Amino acid sequence: MNVGAQRFQSDLEREGVSSVAVDWAPPAGGSPELIAALASLDEGKIAAGNQIAIERFAAATPHLVDFQLAKDVIPGMRDNLILHAGPPITWDRMCGPMKGAIMGVLMMEGFAETPEEAAEVAASGVIDFEPCHHHDAVGPMAGVISSHMVVQVFENKTHGNRAYCPVPEGMGGKLLRYGAYNPEVIENLRWMAGEFREVMHAALSKSEGIDTRALQFQALHMGDEGHNRNKAGTSMLLRALFPLMLESGMPLDAVKRACDFINGNDGYFLSISMPSSKLCLDVARDVEGSSMVTAMCRNGVDFGIRVSGLGDEWFTGPAQMVHGLYFPGFGDEDANPDMGDSCITETAGIGAFALSGAPAIVQLLGGSAAEGVEISKRMYEITLYENTNFSQPVLDFRGSPTGIDIRKVIETNTLPVIDTGSVHRLAGVGQIGAGITAPPIDCFEKALMAFANRYGTELTSKNE
Amino acid sequence: MNVGAQRFQSDLEREGVSSVAVDWAPPAGGSPELIAALASLDEGKIAAGNQIAIERFAAATPHLVDFQLAKDVIPGMRDNLILHAGPPITWDRMCGPMKGAIMGVLMMEGFAETPEEAAEVAASGVIDFEPCHHHDAVGPMAGVISSHMVVQVFENKTHGNRAYCPVPEGMGGKLLRYGAYNPEVIENLRWMAGEFREVMHAALSKSEGIDTRALQFQALHMGDEGHNRNKAGTSMLLRALFPLMLESGMPLDAVKRACDFINGNDGYFLSISMPSSKLCLDVARDVEGSSMVTAMCRNGVDFGIRVSGLGDEWFTGPAQMVHGLYFPGFGDEDANPDMGDSCITETAGIGAFALSGAPAIVQLLGGSAAEGVEISKRMYEITLYENTNFSQPVLDFRGSPTGIDIRKVIETNTLPVIDTGSVHRLAGVGQIGAGITAPPIDCFEKALMAFANRYGTELTSKNE
Repeated sequence: MNVGAQRFQSDLEREGVSSVAVDWAPPAGGSPELIAALASLDEGKIAAGNQIAIERFAAATPHLVDFQLAKDVIPGMRDNLILHAGPPITWDRMCGPMKGAIMGVLMMEGFAETPEEAAEVAASGVIDFEPCHHHDAVGPMAGVISSHMVVQVFENKTHGNRAYCPVPEGMGGKLLRYGAYNPEVIENLRWMAGEFREVMHAALSKSEGIDTRALQFQALHMGDEGHNRNKAGTSMLLRALFPLMLESGMPLDAVKRACDFINGNDGYFLSISMPSSKLCLDVARDVEGSSMVTAMCRNGVDFGIRVSGLGDEWFTGPAQMVHGLYFPGFGDEDANPDMGDSCITETAGIGAFALSGAPAIVQLLGGSAAEGVEISKRMYEITLYENTNFSQPVLDFRGSPTGIDIRKVIETNTLPVIDTGSVHRLAGVGQIGAGITAPPIDCFEKALMAFANRYGTELTSKNE
Repeated sequence: MNVGAQRFQSDLEREGVSSVAVDWAPPAGGSPELIAALASLDEGKIAAGNQIAIERFAAATPHLVDFQLAKDVIPGMRDNLILHAGPPITWDRMCGPMKGAIMGVLMMEGFAETPEEAAEVAASGVIDFEPCHHHDAVGPMAGVISSHMVVQVFENKTHGNRAYCPVPEGMGGKLLRYGAYNPEVIENLRWMAGEFREVMHAALSKSEGIDTRALQFQALHMGDEGHNRNKAGTSMLLRALFPLMLESGMPLDAVKRACDFINGNDGYFLSISMPSSKLCLDVARDVEGSSMVTAMCRNGVDFGIRVSGLGDEWFTGPAQMVHGLYFPGFGDEDANPDMGDSCITETAGIGAFALSGAPAIVQLLGGSAAEGVEISKRMYEITLYENTNFSQPVLDFRGSPTGIDIRKVIETNTLPVIDTGSVHRLAGVGQIGAGITAPPIDCFEKALMAFANRYGTELTSKNE
């Protein structure tokens, strides 16, 4: 089971992270409570619920439809609200990069003139902090969204639900999502919310929206896995956008700047891949009896998951470290724990779940192509469905392993794998490496106990 | 050696094609003449020659620099000259699609009004037919180039040599390169030579040229192999061209049409990949003592190769059939033998030689991803050099097998593999399938005998 994945595996074990895969272990790690919880479940009801959740997921058809200011489109958005990545967290518990990003938007929104003032405002209770996920949004890294930031608007043309994601600011370290708040960062956010938004809004108004699932399908056959590598997706997106931008009627120099901005960021498509994943997962939420995970995310301190049959409750545990390779000059002591909403991609069966198709990225993660294939294969053990919209050529076009089942995670002691960037623990330094990580097992144990509490049979309860 | 390649292999054997790989066979197929020829060679001199040829090849830096009419740039081009794919061939021996393409350009150039007239003109002796390769050019399929067609101009910035390739007309069957000559085909050629050329010439005049080796490097990490699959290369080319087209100063609607034309053809990049390959191989030509193949091509009747140490002589044999899958409604009886200059890509170490990186195409070719990897690996047995500019992620970033050595082909009884399209034997029907094929062994046997005649030692001659 671990053949070919020795290096990734040993990285995880070295740091005491719960084992992603083991040669053999008793089901549920031998825990009597978890074994009883699993045994108590009404299999028929759960199978029926999962069937509905997967059917809804599979029928969703995400499209990129608009670029707008957050305040104009995100439900419940208001001047004193700032959204952030991951499950709920208070200002005092936030990590450095998230605090930095919040200080940045407080200055951009006019709540403060200096970083010191911004920190005071943030701590004063005047500002509300809520997860992106509570407002149909997802954000990479710090995932901070404020009223006057531009967001991309996505619509599921099948079910009509919408999702929102910040426009990626570019490449490098001095970016809001890594907690940078210097004047150039804020100026860039203002340009994105101004001229860039106007060009992109005008361009998309010439179309019925861009079918992002079709772009994802193609990108997964072109070396992307849709989380850490998005060069093909970005390229296919540009091929879809360019004709629309030419027809936008906007001044050529503004079109040129907007085009160069997207073209200069091979990672742009992550911010297409994430909300597209969320749109599909959101319609699988709140299905009675379903044991499918509908969200995984982290705020740099806590990792949280949601389970379809348990509504919108978060089950959390400590965010883990990312294990792989650091850029020159950085090491373990610099790294923040895992952060951002980006693992919504793994929740939707891509990212590390489709790593077999992205051999060119494994070097960056500190592994080999063969290890990437083994990770993809292992994820079939904990998922409900093989999504042929996202097929894996190296696995003879087998559909990507999709729909994490909390029961299977516990039964097999196999955690979902996430391939992700590693960010510096201090605000504004930026990405310092990349690698793989996993949720803490706590999330799944807590979720399973809550699930058994709700869906355990009377009979089993009596037998206990 | 054949593990995983059973299906491709059996396809070839079924049709009596010389075996691409064998479990074991005596060196040189047991032929006393070939064994003696191999034994006679001056190894030191040949190693020195191959070293020079490979160094020149590796130092070449191809760029796309211009779009021009053939008559204005191709050396030796003249009104009554038509270039074609493959080694030299006379009108009476040409296959259907090549005759059709020639009839088309004769009408476009004003030599004839009707197809019947065009055929008469072609047979009359008024028109000269010469290989693209004799004029620094390469053309896919029929590979026909006439004076008033637009060609892409490539320059090797290291050594200064140039290469030329027709602009690809688009997708589908009704194309000149498949022998179609209806009025729409001719009208399209005229638009390409007019407005399209003007836009692209203006766009490229804003740049120092586009580094096509850098695009190839990236595309080979994005699911392309650079012969049959060119979706990533086309996408990366468009990303390089968009900004230049925006700055071209040409009318927006003309820019839009030019952009849509390239954007609508995922295979466009083959016509970048081919001349880029030729530029690198051309500087490896005519090196004293080198046993490296510098061109492979076919005209639909004959397959020809050139060897560096033997100058510009062609060594030919019968073009083989392509074995793989046909599109619905077509079969063996419809297929023309292998045609076009496109296997210049394999000659330069990509195409089937880099098939490990293009798992998404193997379905189209009738094989599996694992078989593609095995083909790539096998090509190391007959090549001189591993080109790390074109690395293969699935093979842990091993450089692509490059520089076919005629000695190794004969010694190991292993033919180069070519993955290619299958074309209908009648003019204008178009592509009817795709698969793999190989040169006839005759080319290599003839070349080796000529090579031994020139580079065999006196000592060995006496011993015979």
